[in-house]
Amino acid sequence: MNNVKEVEIRKLTTSNFVKPYEMHYTQNGVRKRWDLLRIHHSVAVLIYNISRKVVVLVKQFRPAVYLAGIPEDDFKTEIDTKKYSPEAGITLELCAGIVDKLKSLEEIAKEEVFEECGYNVPVSSLQRIIQYRSGIGITGDQQTLFYCEVTDEMQVNPGGGNIEEGELIDVVELSIPEVKKLLSEPSVLSPGGFLFALSWFLQHKGPF
Amino acid sequence: MNNVKEVEIRKLTTSNFVKPYEMHYTQNGVRKRWDLLRIHHSVAVLIYNISRKVVVLVKQFRPAVYLAGIPEDDFKTEIDTKKYSPEAGITLELCAGIVDKLKSLEEIAKEEVFEECGYNVPVSSLQRIIQYRSGIGITGDQQTLFYCEVTDEMQVNPGGGNIEEGELIDVVELSIPEVKKLLSEPSVLSPGGFLFALSWFLQHKGPF
Repeated sequence: MNNVKEVEIRKLTTSNFVKPYEMHYTQNGVRKRWDLLRIHHSVAVLIYNISRKVVVLVKQFRPAVYLAGIPEDDFKTEIDTKKYSPEAGITLELCAGIVDKLKSLEEIAKEEVFEECGYNVPVSSLQRIIQYRSGIGITGDQQTLFYCEVTDEMQVNPGGGNIEEGELIDVVELSIPEVKKLLSEPSVLSPGGFLFALSWFLQHKGPF
Repeated sequence: MNNVKEVEIRKLTTSNFVKPYEMHYTQNGVRKRWDLLRIHHSVAVLIYNISRKVVVLVKQFRPAVYLAGIPEDDFKTEIDTKKYSPEAGITLELCAGIVDKLKSLEEIAKEEVFEECGYNVPVSSLQRIIQYRSGIGITGDQQTLFYCEVTDEMQVNPGGGNIEEGELIDVVELSIPEVKKLLSEPSVLSPGGFLFALSWFLQHKGPF
């Protein structure tokens, strides 16, 4: 997964995924402008394997996370991957996916659990935890968080993501002590909703 | 705050805040492209007023959150604010701000607590909780989360944000039971990091 090289940054031309807009509006009589993005809504699934008492997560290289650690002056030429290790872009996340189909959120979540982690779960086993916003400043997309318990018998393939879509995902299992340790780290390469999901899990599915 | 009208959406031209790029890279021998954004890092502060045992939060109109609830077909003309109420864009958040100055994260956090909520806090009172990523798909910016206790005596103005920057912010106080209730709602207009911060607070600063 870490074998990332020949990294170049270009100004965005057109995109099916990232649609930058300006909003112009009047608030309390003052004309304002705000720059923002239109992106897809998403689902995320906290998976707990009850056979071995491990939380099932995914690791992948995330270009946006990698880029956030590189000064803009160094975008102009090919990125020096010796100076800026691609390891800095590898995140630990919940199994997740965008909502770009006319299916229920539960059905989309079920497909992501299958594609990314290889577990075949019934739609009815997906428990909604909460809906929140992935972002509020630039993106305002909604993420729906699910909880799902699985067993070893439900894993029918090793997962790894949709190869046709270029996904390259490592499935990672964390024990309860490892989850607790992660939540006490000073810095993580994970989003805020991931930290909330793990906290929710420890509080609601224990005692551990 | 809710007096939002004359809302128009235009394609983004140039922006000081939102810089869309394409990253092109080779991973395991396969050439890939990812569309992403370069945005500022940020700080967020969970404020607890120990005089009255309330968590101090902020409410504001967030264009990106509002836009996320409107179908793209309805962007073409002025947005119908009767059909799409601007209330749908009003978020409940932690006091927060972007890192765009050569100051320590603690100093920037202190300034945001003063500007948005009116409390004058010593830099030394800001406790780092954790650093995480606000986003992982499109933005990869880092947010540093702080905890800070305040008293009524430390509030020297009503807050409300930086008027020169066009900020219009309502300070909101939640009691402990209200925080617990919020965390059990099915849907919130808040980001994942906000939910984590409240969970962390209940777990680490109680028992409540």
